[in-house]
Amino acid sequence: MKTVFSDDQLLHAPRHEISDGQLKPAVEIPSRAEIVLKTVKARNLGDILEPSDFGQRPLEKVHDKGYLAFLECFWGKWEAEGRASAEAFPFIWPVRSLRADPVPDHIDGQLGRYSMDAGTPLGARTWEAAKASANTALTAAKLVHEGNKAAFGLCRPPGHHAGKDFFGGYCFLNNAAIAAQWLRDNGAERVAILDVDYHHGNGTQAIFYDRPDVLFLSIHADPRQEYPYFLGHGDETGVKGGTGFTKNWPLALGTDWEGYLPALEEACHWLKVFKPDALVVSLGMDCFENDPISGFKFTSDDFSRLGARLGKTGLPTVFLMEGGYAVDALGTNCVNVLEAFEKG
Amino acid sequence: MKTVFSDDQLLHAPRHEISDGQLKPAVEIPSRAEIVLKTVKARNLGDILEPSDFGQRPLEKVHDKGYLAFLECFWGKWEAEGRASAEAFPFIWPVRSLRADPVPDHIDGQLGRYSMDAGTPLGARTWEAAKASANTALTAAKLVHEGNKAAFGLCRPPGHHAGKDFFGGYCFLNNAAIAAQWLRDNGAERVAILDVDYHHGNGTQAIFYDRPDVLFLSIHADPRQEYPYFLGHGDETGVKGGTGFTKNWPLALGTDWEGYLPALEEACHWLKVFKPDALVVSLGMDCFENDPISGFKFTSDDFSRLGARLGKTGLPTVFLMEGGYAVDALGTNCVNVLEAFEKG
Repeated sequence: MKTVFSDDQLLHAPRHEISDGQLKPAVEIPSRAEIVLKTVKARNLGDILEPSDFGQRPLEKVHDKGYLAFLECFWGKWEAEGRASAEAFPFIWPVRSLRADPVPDHIDGQLGRYSMDAGTPLGARTWEAAKASANTALTAAKLVHEGNKAAFGLCRPPGHHAGKDFFGGYCFLNNAAIAAQWLRDNGAERVAILDVDYHHGNGTQAIFYDRPDVLFLSIHADPRQEYPYFLGHGDETGVKGGTGFTKNWPLALGTDWEGYLPALEEACHWLKVFKPDALVVSLGMDCFENDPISGFKFTSDDFSRLGARLGKTGLPTVFLMEGGYAVDALGTNCVNVLEAFEKG
Repeated sequence: MKTVFSDDQLLHAPRHEISDGQLKPAVEIPSRAEIVLKTVKARNLGDILEPSDFGQRPLEKVHDKGYLAFLECFWGKWEAEGRASAEAFPFIWPVRSLRADPVPDHIDGQLGRYSMDAGTPLGARTWEAAKASANTALTAAKLVHEGNKAAFGLCRPPGHHAGKDFFGGYCFLNNAAIAAQWLRDNGAERVAILDVDYHHGNGTQAIFYDRPDVLFLSIHADPRQEYPYFLGHGDETGVKGGTGFTKNWPLALGTDWEGYLPALEEACHWLKVFKPDALVVSLGMDCFENDPISGFKFTSDDFSRLGARLGKTGLPTVFLMEGGYAVDALGTNCVNVLEAFEKG
């Protein structure tokens, strides 16, 4: 299986996140990508390619133009205000009874307008890294479009929490949504997204929530108990023409492979029914038992089981990396999925 | 003029706020109330009374019961989770495309569900202090209801950013809304609220936005440039039966008394037209030129001018303290308003 990756994806290097009322060391860090890349090489998964530049258009098919302009221009404004000594965190959000529009002129207002949390710092080169990560996703999608059975976009920063017009959950551009939309725009009639990250892919779900051409399936920790808390419930099944084309399996904290498998089997059943031309897998490794911020109990072998099961679907598959914060085991767990998929 | 205050209001003693990507020293601190109390005594403004306990009912007339239960029970849960070493900040919010309901079971989800910003820490005794502050507002309202021309509720923590079901902007219970509603429930047919805090009173506005019986007038820094960023624009005039009963005067950063006066005159004009049975003034002192977080240019003498102008309205008036963070001058500026009102 070919892997796509660019060193530019390392340019987003957050120092902190806000958690528990404190600034804590960031967990979504460049070494996550580096260890996966190292393991891809060590285990000879296949060629490693640089992403092509797909330009702005595929991003605009998924994201709000004002949001993209905000991400691109943010750091320049932040520097111009003399505030570049710190990374930028938002601190106020337009929740109920507050207005998202007009977009404030003040940069702190814009930070809140275009975000959903306080844990996702914007730094000097975040935009470059996020764009490179999206290009990695698009290049992997193109490889599958060109006939490869599968490809691995080693995306980082991740994407599945990013909404049409907000960042959050360590995500800026929704790589999976961008790849799925690109596949739709390049001949695929139906695309399925299976999100196996420990956290619900709220951004991806919302982007396709009213559409029947992109099936969104997600298996994740119950949002009543876990981030992102405000989406990913079992009663969310789509709206309008998209009704029935979103399916969530929120699972209890402590779920192990045995507890996970029935949901995975159901998801694979729906893939069979939907008959997509391509599958995009939002591949988080944070179901791992030693993940520092998560609560499922996958062993490293369980990731091989996951990959083998996905391989059995027989679908052309674009794997895109999402979360997973047990850095030492991240490469092993990730390549376990990909290798087993190829053998499966 | 009588002043109402309880030492319980000092029990909320935040250490930090999140601002500029850093934990910075909190600015909404107990000494704010202490210096105002000291100045009230030094200048012999009048008797200082303890608030009466009005119980839960007046709070429930304004706030969501689930929100009140959250505030009351939060710290016990936080301690039970072993997290009481730190004050609590939320870090994710249900913005666009995310669901406010169901309310998450997890305490971090609840923190985000019931808040609007990351700058308002919840501490061990926040609930006691907020309740005491609301009782102070209610007691001041009762004094005016009983025939006093005016009364001063030395509220702290402040209230005007707190919504029906969220805290934020250093506010937990909306003291002005609670007092106005109590006046309505005790014989006043029409109540006006004039908010002269530097920041827009988004919570108060939203609570009465569809009602013609409570006029909401606010003069404040333009939300395009200033906190709370997402409410307080000139085009917000109420909805349904409340249409025409909200009026905002967003002013440019750098506004001084001369620039402020026309808006104040217009607001006083609407007070005359509306003929309220009572006026509640959300009295922030953060229009002061030396306020550390604000951008208007009032001198201490200008606060006397403000008080004198309000005195000319001839309305029974409940003054409730809101913001103002230049602590050394806070007592002087506050009592300048109140003294000049009495003479005016």
